[in-house]
Amino acid sequence: MKAVALRAQEIEPFRVMEILAQAKLLEAQGRDIIHLEIGEPDFVTPAPVIEAAVLALRAGLTHYTPALGLPALRQAIAGYYHERYGVEVDPARVCVTPGASGALLLAMASLFDPGDEILLADPGYPCNRHFARLMEAHGVGVPVGVESHFQLTAALVEQHWGPRTQGVLVGNPANPTGTLVSTQELTAIHAVVRGHGGWLLVDEIYHELLYDTAPPSAAALGDDVVLINSFSKYFLMTGWRLGWLLAPPAVVTAVERIAQNVFLAAPTVAQHAALSALSAEVRPLLEASKAELCRRRNYLLPQLADLGFDCPVTPEGAFYVYAGIKKFGMTSEELVQRCLLETGVALTPGTDFSPMQGKHYVRFAYTTGENRLQQAVDRLRQWL
Amino acid sequence: MKAVALRAQEIEPFRVMEILAQAKLLEAQGRDIIHLEIGEPDFVTPAPVIEAAVLALRAGLTHYTPALGLPALRQAIAGYYHERYGVEVDPARVCVTPGASGALLLAMASLFDPGDEILLADPGYPCNRHFARLMEAHGVGVPVGVESHFQLTAALVEQHWGPRTQGVLVGNPANPTGTLVSTQELTAIHAVVRGHGGWLLVDEIYHELLYDTAPPSAAALGDDVVLINSFSKYFLMTGWRLGWLLAPPAVVTAVERIAQNVFLAAPTVAQHAALSALSAEVRPLLEASKAELCRRRNYLLPQLADLGFDCPVTPEGAFYVYAGIKKFGMTSEELVQRCLLETGVALTPGTDFSPMQGKHYVRFAYTTGENRLQQAVDRLRQWL
Repeated sequence: MKAVALRAQEIEPFRVMEILAQAKLLEAQGRDIIHLEIGEPDFVTPAPVIEAAVLALRAGLTHYTPALGLPALRQAIAGYYHERYGVEVDPARVCVTPGASGALLLAMASLFDPGDEILLADPGYPCNRHFARLMEAHGVGVPVGVESHFQLTAALVEQHWGPRTQGVLVGNPANPTGTLVSTQELTAIHAVVRGHGGWLLVDEIYHELLYDTAPPSAAALGDDVVLINSFSKYFLMTGWRLGWLLAPPAVVTAVERIAQNVFLAAPTVAQHAALSALSAEVRPLLEASKAELCRRRNYLLPQLADLGFDCPVTPEGAFYVYAGIKKFGMTSEELVQRCLLETGVALTPGTDFSPMQGKHYVRFAYTTGENRLQQAVDRLRQWL
Repeated sequence: MKAVALRAQEIEPFRVMEILAQAKLLEAQGRDIIHLEIGEPDFVTPAPVIEAAVLALRAGLTHYTPALGLPALRQAIAGYYHERYGVEVDPARVCVTPGASGALLLAMASLFDPGDEILLADPGYPCNRHFARLMEAHGVGVPVGVESHFQLTAALVEQHWGPRTQGVLVGNPANPTGTLVSTQELTAIHAVVRGHGGWLLVDEIYHELLYDTAPPSAAALGDDVVLINSFSKYFLMTGWRLGWLLAPPAVVTAVERIAQNVFLAAPTVAQHAALSALSAEVRPLLEASKAELCRRRNYLLPQLADLGFDCPVTPEGAFYVYAGIKKFGMTSEELVQRCLLETGVALTPGTDFSPMQGKHYVRFAYTTGENRLQQAVDRLRQWL
């Protein structure tokens, strides 16, 4: 029989999923596991958002929406850019998608041809290069380190731009490092990309989870920037599968066409719930969760440094610490494996995020409460 | 600036969406429009399913599920094949997806390489060839007509199998014709495909909406058949975006890997609701809706014949009539356009389903109540 497609062989699994499966097995055997591997906070969706969903469901709003989303939600997202960032966004550019995953798929499918290359920071979110692979394009990892806060710079983009390069994708702030590209640097990257006639994609799914600063959205750079965002992280709606794409005007038609075919539409109940998530009533609840995440970061970061992890760059947002492990004389896969078995603390190996340098790093996700973080630190202290 | 990707230029929009947009514009101007263009029944999701969703939401079940779905739902879907079709299905083969659209994407992405060809009936569901295009493969339309009930046959598959052919996709019953491949013919197609070492994909999203017969599921043919199904149609859950794929054992790992990257998971609330949709309590409600659809078909079909439409084949399922229009001396696009403007009845031009023969057909979707169908018939009678 015919084998599976080459792309299916080449797209790698998340190593974290194996860790998670193993952790669950240990739990089933009675072990107490502290989950610092999963990129999903423990918070439940706020009650008013849930009640908005209940209202919509009981009103019988169970049919398809238009492919690019409920007009009211597209309008509300445009309004969000105005209120939150002071940027005017045409609602016609807002494409509501099944998660930021759906936004990434639509962006990659609309913009990149087979053989095109897209520059990505290495380390970075692994799906980015897999979405490129899905479209027969190539996510080209650019090794970044402490000197650039694990982010691309305009100089790096210029240096790595090749004859097949057609775009750059920046996570701002990024997973797994939580670090930010400064507005000045992003503006410079934008200029380089524009100069080459390519596309700048900016993933801002963690942009509202910045703890120390409130920089402008990349939407302010111009309507040629492709923006990816999500209701999953700050808005605490992971399982609802809802995100959005701000598409350049010339691209909206292509995005709509592909969305019609590939998704039909994003989930209807999630869209009605999202209208509530964007409301003034809900914002204080989201801010409270954000403050809790900030407290966790502020607790965890110095503790990890104290344990001997190398954390030279303060994560400014998201809910991750990307920590160097050179001191411990193990690869990340070894450390993660032994740490799980010997301490019951589950981590993600850096190899999920960086084919190049990942074996020297692990990712801590502070997606569980502070007392559990303390227990994890205690266990690690005894172990290391 | 760089243009959009070639695939984005080549994937065609649904023409029905332009008709829908035009129809909504006319409605906004006060015109009464009868919607026979949309492939979505007017039924709301049954109340017990909605209440199961409410319960799950209020219990805080708002996080991600595993990439292939809740274990309980995968188990329940496997159980459904046992109860409904008497087929034993390993729950490990059940991949819960964001709609049948998600199932089609995962199947195409997992199985087909760039340049591969997949045989499709023409007319057929347009997304099928667009999903192939998305993966840089080719959906090759095989013209089918009345003589084979608008379906592929083993002889046609054998005849059109070329050096690049790697699979066949059958909609059973099919959109837009509602016609079925007999079990005998499907078994023969399966043998031909097996003989060539290719993949047989069967889309059964309308299989529970067969009005006159209850044939076995293609799952009974063997676990090498790739099955696509959905909670949208029979289970009345369109806007929830939930479907499933029965993947061959050798393919599940590839599907899971791609699903992890592309979707993360299907919507959580929809999965909990679907558990209720599969319950014995809900089935009578679904059967009542099915009976209503059957009454509509039984009303509409002879009326259309009486009006001069060419309906030589009885649609055995789904909620469509694919009707020939040669008698009226217009192309389908002309007829649909004039019909909307002059009678307020919205139809879908056959060109959405058949690049080859579509201009001689229109699709009626009996997705609205019988009194509206009667009004539509009256308007058409006056007009034609």
